[in-house]
This record gives sequence, C-alpha cells and structure tokens, in this order.
Amino acid sequence: MTIKATNIIRHAGKVAPDERTAATGNRPCIVWLTGLSGCGKSTIAMSLEHQLVASGHPAYVLDGDNLRHGLNRDLGFSPEERAENIRRAGEVARLFADAGVIALCSFISPYAADRDAIRAMVEPGQFVEVFVDAPLNICEQRDPKGLYKKARAAIAEGRPLMLTGVDAPYEAPRHPEIHLHTASQSVEECVKSILAYLRRESRLVD
Amino acid sequence: MTIKATNIIRHAGKVAPDERTAATGNRPCIVWLTGLSGCGKSTIAMSLEHQLVASGHPAYVLDGDNLRHGLNRDLGFSPEERAENIRRAGEVARLFADAGVIALCSFISPYAADRDAIRAMVEPGQFVEVFVDAPLNICEQRDPKGLYKKARAAIAEGRPLMLTGVDAPYEAPRHPEIHLHTASQSVEECVKSILAYLRRESRLVD
Repeated sequence: MTIKATNIIRHAGKVAPDERTAATGNRPCIVWLTGLSGCGKSTIAMSLEHQLVASGHPAYVLDGDNLRHGLNRDLGFSPEERAENIRRAGEVARLFADAGVIALCSFISPYAADRDAIRAMVEPGQFVEVFVDAPLNICEQRDPKGLYKKARAAIAEGRPLMLTGVDAPYEAPRHPEIHLHTASQSVEECVKSILAYLRRESRLVD
Repeated sequence: MTIKATNIIRHAGKVAPDERTAATGNRPCIVWLTGLSGCGKSTIAMSLEHQLVASGHPAYVLDGDNLRHGLNRDLGFSPEERAENIRRAGEVARLFADAGVIALCSFISPYAADRDAIRAMVEPGQFVEVFVDAPLNICEQRDPKGLYKKARAAIAEGRPLMLTGVDAPYEAPRHPEIHLHTASQSVEECVKSILAYLRRESRLVD
C-alpha cells in the first residue's frame, strides 16, 4: 500500500466524543475476533451484536466474507491482498467506533502484524483482541463452509489452497484481551465473557 | 476494479432491520451531498450530524478528505482513483446505513455514473442525493482550502490540477432528491430542509 493522498485537510467534526457516549452508552471500541475458520468467530460476533442492539447499544458485525461482497470485492487471497483486506476492515472499524457503534470484527486475520497495525491506529483500550481458540481438528470436524475438505482435496492433487491452519500459517495472539476456548465454552459463555470485559473496562457505560 | 473475491458465503445477521429501527429511530439511509469544492457540503453535513446525534439519531459524516487519511490513503486523484474513492465511500456508507447510522456523505463526486452506482446498490428510498449548488465564482471567492487559487496558479504555469469546475468536469445531478442553493440559503435553512425531507419520507420515524 503506497500512500498517495496528499494535500488533504482534515475537517474537525462537530460532535464531541462525550456527546456520542451520552447518546449511545458506549465508548469507542473495536472487538476484534481472530481465529481459524470454524472456530466460532462469526457465531459469537452475531450473538453479541444481537444482545448489544437489544440492550440499546449500537453494534455492527464486520465480517471477512461479507466485506468481500462489497468494499473488498476487488481483493483476492494473495498475502498482499489479505493484508489489504484486513487494513480496510480495520479502517472501517475505526470509522464505526468513531461513530459510536461497537465494531464487532470477525476475521481469521492470521498475521499478528496486521492485527497490531489496527491496534496501533486507535487509542489505548479501544482495540479488544479476542482470540477465538479451537484446535484445528475440532474446526476441521465442524468445517461449516467445507473449506477444510476442499483444502485437503486440493493438497492431495498438489494444488495448495492457502487455507489458514492447513497450508498457511496462523499466528496466535500472544497477549489478547480475551482468550476464548470454543471446544469447551458455549457461545453464550463466550458472549457473556466479552460483555463482562466491556463493562469492566468501561466500554459500556450504562 | 476487478472482482476477485470468490468462494464467499454471506452470513445472515441476527439483527432484523425492524429491531435496528426500533433502537435508533431511523430507517437505513445515505444522505449524499455532492457539489463543487467550497459549495458548503461539509459544513452542512457536520451541522446535520450534530442535530441528528443531539436528537438521538445515530449519524456520521463520511468526508472525502477524512476518508483519504485512512481507508483511501492509497488512492490518488486520477479518474480511476477518484472512481475507486467514491466506490469505497459508497460501500462504507452502505455498511453504516445497514448498521442503523445515517451516513452523511460529503464528496465532490463529480461523475453522475459514480453517484448512480451507489444509488443502485441500495434499496429504493435509501439514497438521498443532495445537490449542494453554488455558482463557481461564489465557491472560488470562498475558497476555504485555497484549492482554486492553487489551480489558477497551476494553470497559468501550464500544469493542470484537475480541480472540479475549473479544469475537470462536474456533472450536476439531474433529479436530486434535494436541491440546495447555498449562495442564497443559510446553513440552518439547508439543514432544516434535509431534516424535513427525511421526516416526510419516513427515514426518521420518531
């Protein structure tokens, strides 16, 4: 990514962060769920979204697959394009957080550097990294999108599919704010644990 | 823009549009302000944002300049890059609208085709095109960013700057939902007129 935009003046908004917090009951926040395909990221994100919205907190799921239907549909799956996919997701999450909407980001996001770059973009405390941890064999048994089956077949034919955890690396978070174990914890327990964290850290203030 | 993302499964969200409307008092909506540099787009957008948030309606300004600091900082000002700038802005606006936040988009967006492409992406009634109309000579007198001065100097030296309205075209909306004349209307009148439209068309429901 080359920075080409120059000669740009940033407009100061008229809405102060405190006014948004008063209106929404949230402080700016990006909940970033990372983990293998099939680990349960999207299921947890959507259940969390539903509970937040039902209790009056604006929240929205940004999802790898869904973004690729729109904003990121010009991107493929090369390492550079994966990095750009995550960069744009992070930038959109930052806009949501700034708008007072809790951004629930569900992305495999295998590279620590890409995740750390988003953390570095926002204020301390705004980036909540959630490691949705499940052993590869469990994810592969679940295989909700049939990706593991496809990857194994492709590898047997000598065509790498670059699936994270199979023939592409996953760099586990070393210091995530929240570490979930979905082989043993239910979706409800995971959601509860994230909500408790957000309240404890004053990201939710009512 | 080449579509490269394939093999993508869209997750259905768990939050129904009616639940979001109940929580926010808005229906999904993109207010798209288009017009020359200096016509008053950003000033109107920010005043509108402030009034909406103060009355409990989530709203957020997406601004050409501000997006270029983050999401679109890899884009320059060639015709293709301008088109991609507007495409991404439209995609982000669609995500905001889907999240229940009124997206207030302030972009020169000189090409009708680019604006129409965003209109075509969303449901009928969701895209509210606002033509922020002011004669070039008025915009040039205001010149809040000094762009006209810079463009005239560049042209005098034989270097085109591709500034909309000076040495690059502006295609005025033919059927905008709202047509504002900022040489004669105040910011307050313009904001009032947009709010009245949103209420009349049931984009604001409380």
